[in-house]
Amino acid sequence: MSNLSISQRGIQMPASPIRKLVPFAEKAKAKGMHVYHLNIGQPDIETPPAAMEAVRHNHMRVLEYSHSAGNESYRRKLAGYYNHIGIDVSFEDILITTGGSEAIFFSFLACLNPGDEVIIPEPFYANYNGFAVEAGVQVVPVPSSIQDGFALPPVSDFEKLITDKTKAIILCNPNNPTGYLYSRQEMDTLKDIILKHNLYLLADEAYREFCYGGTHISAMTLKGAEQNVILTDTISKRYSACGARMGALVTKNKGVLETVMKFAQARLSPPGFAQILGEAAIDLPADYFDSTREEYKNRRDALVRRLNAMEGVFCPNPGGAFYAMASLPVADSEDFCRWLLEEFSFEQQTLMMAPAPGFYATPGLGKNEVRLAYVLNVAEIEKAMDCLEQALKIYPHRTAGKPVV
Amino acid sequence: MSNLSISQRGIQMPASPIRKLVPFAEKAKAKGMHVYHLNIGQPDIETPPAAMEAVRHNHMRVLEYSHSAGNESYRRKLAGYYNHIGIDVSFEDILITTGGSEAIFFSFLACLNPGDEVIIPEPFYANYNGFAVEAGVQVVPVPSSIQDGFALPPVSDFEKLITDKTKAIILCNPNNPTGYLYSRQEMDTLKDIILKHNLYLLADEAYREFCYGGTHISAMTLKGAEQNVILTDTISKRYSACGARMGALVTKNKGVLETVMKFAQARLSPPGFAQILGEAAIDLPADYFDSTREEYKNRRDALVRRLNAMEGVFCPNPGGAFYAMASLPVADSEDFCRWLLEEFSFEQQTLMMAPAPGFYATPGLGKNEVRLAYVLNVAEIEKAMDCLEQALKIYPHRTAGKPVV
Repeated sequence: MSNLSISQRGIQMPASPIRKLVPFAEKAKAKGMHVYHLNIGQPDIETPPAAMEAVRHNHMRVLEYSHSAGNESYRRKLAGYYNHIGIDVSFEDILITTGGSEAIFFSFLACLNPGDEVIIPEPFYANYNGFAVEAGVQVVPVPSSIQDGFALPPVSDFEKLITDKTKAIILCNPNNPTGYLYSRQEMDTLKDIILKHNLYLLADEAYREFCYGGTHISAMTLKGAEQNVILTDTISKRYSACGARMGALVTKNKGVLETVMKFAQARLSPPGFAQILGEAAIDLPADYFDSTREEYKNRRDALVRRLNAMEGVFCPNPGGAFYAMASLPVADSEDFCRWLLEEFSFEQQTLMMAPAPGFYATPGLGKNEVRLAYVLNVAEIEKAMDCLEQALKIYPHRTAGKPVV
Repeated sequence: MSNLSISQRGIQMPASPIRKLVPFAEKAKAKGMHVYHLNIGQPDIETPPAAMEAVRHNHMRVLEYSHSAGNESYRRKLAGYYNHIGIDVSFEDILITTGGSEAIFFSFLACLNPGDEVIIPEPFYANYNGFAVEAGVQVVPVPSSIQDGFALPPVSDFEKLITDKTKAIILCNPNNPTGYLYSRQEMDTLKDIILKHNLYLLADEAYREFCYGGTHISAMTLKGAEQNVILTDTISKRYSACGARMGALVTKNKGVLETVMKFAQARLSPPGFAQILGEAAIDLPADYFDSTREEYKNRRDALVRRLNAMEGVFCPNPGGAFYAMASLPVADSEDFCRWLLEEFSFEQQTLMMAPAPGFYATPGLGKNEVRLAYVLNVAEIEKAMDCLEQALKIYPHRTAGKPVV
């Protein structure tokens, strides 16, 4: 059976760190436990009814392939959305993708050769690893730390990692998993690095609508770096429409866009119904995001307050997205998260979190950290935090917790 | 700007041969011409209203990620569909993909290393080239010929191409672009090859419902080859739902399926609305395909009759799918197809076909051939054939045509 083997990249491909504890959660539920899901970025926010109605009222006789770059009517509307938030693009700078996932993968394919390197501040969105394996690209992590609230690492940390194989940097802003919102100064620092070293900047701005206090600086507004920046976007979080699989790749770099178009043609077209949803969503009232943002801010405040009130726990206050990273007084967060599902119970309830090591590429980092997605309402977050508080009191392998400056 | 370059695979990536003449078609239309589109497999058949209604009547409050393998309810129904047509699988053998495209790409990723080889009878579906470039896989064509009606090449032709890098064979049955329907004997021959040389068989059966006369032998029914066969499927053609982007990867090989699942997790989930469509379509009456099959058969008969009645033209009678390949009395079919759009006009009408060289990997093959998709009704096909007949009479670079035995 020598030839009927699995490929090396198939073996190398990481399983999802967000989903790998799912079987334990299923067992807990089978035992009658209620599990608070803070492990995955699946918002509970209602998908805008007006956008859903547009899909329900479609009059298509034949569900045809769309243009490989997406329907022009949608691309034109999307250009209007970007213009409205200060990003100067036309519909010809936009290619509609199957989720933000495909936009990231297409960027890798078009910009990097197998063996080329992409630098990513860690912890980072774990699926970048998966797309890198698919494209044969090497991820080079540059560590940020919970003590600094996951701020951008210093320029010198980037520069000592840059080799002649380095072709790109990925920045997720606001960040998944840290919730960190990068400042104007940090974005300018990043611009200097990519211009000095002639790198692409793959800008993942899936959470731009959800910033609490600070201002979101889009990489697409970095003057002089227009040819370097590729925006990978999605409506999954913006409109709570994760199941639509509707993203976009946006760039002023025509060579990149023309190349991406060839990859897009091979897969024919992005999903049809979801383009109707995305197009309709752009007509939502201008204040649509205000209530959602306020809701997420309240959740964040509740979560962060409760976490930091627990002995040995530290959670920097995230400036955006709907994630928080916390360090816990445990030696191994994966063991702890599994124990929560397998052995712990508080009033027949427990919680599920994502162990942080899956978000780090450097072995050993994040072992006492977890990511929490605040995608439940405040009352549920309070109950989940009650569970966590009780659990940490009785967890047999509790440590003193890391001292945090 | 040395580093801000396009990747080698981006440069190497072929543009779609089906779509590259589109700008010329658009110009022709702008001049007021009517263009009969026989170039692309976009059926005009109505998407089943009952399936569209299921999407229209969805009650989802939140459009959530589905399971990465697709909704279990859909997978269970799909297993029922396969069982009904004699393919013995359970829902656990099925992973829902974003179109058949993703199923093919995932198969490459999971089964082949970069540099590994896949043998494909040519001419073949051009986008296999694209997925091969993305996955770093080498396509090795084994030529079939129009004189033989594009039958399976002899075993010896396969065997002289098999090296220690050969990992798989792709068979599209019934075939796009040739329309060829492989016999029981040919399928058994193929089984012997894959078992003897321990190869995967990637079986693209997108057109299985459309066979005119002969019986479709699914690769999934080849006894003893269960671990070798991976079925890549789609509802695009079956239910005229190309824009849904709804496919499936089906295999009894658990190692392959578990590996594919890791790639599926990285892209989170297949499209949500389209899963509703796909699930509802399975409840269509058992005779649903009869009228569509009859319609396609009538179109095929009209097209093939007209083509073979033209001097210097030869078109073998396709047994399935909705494509036909024809050899024309021209030296360069791409020049001819472009001339049809740019310079020819018959009663303000012309036709668009796909030049065949894009479906061949061997340089120089298919230069006098075109692919025609019979996705228009018989009256329109007759008019398109009127155009072609007139065009061949006045084409300045007409040749005598290849003698066909």
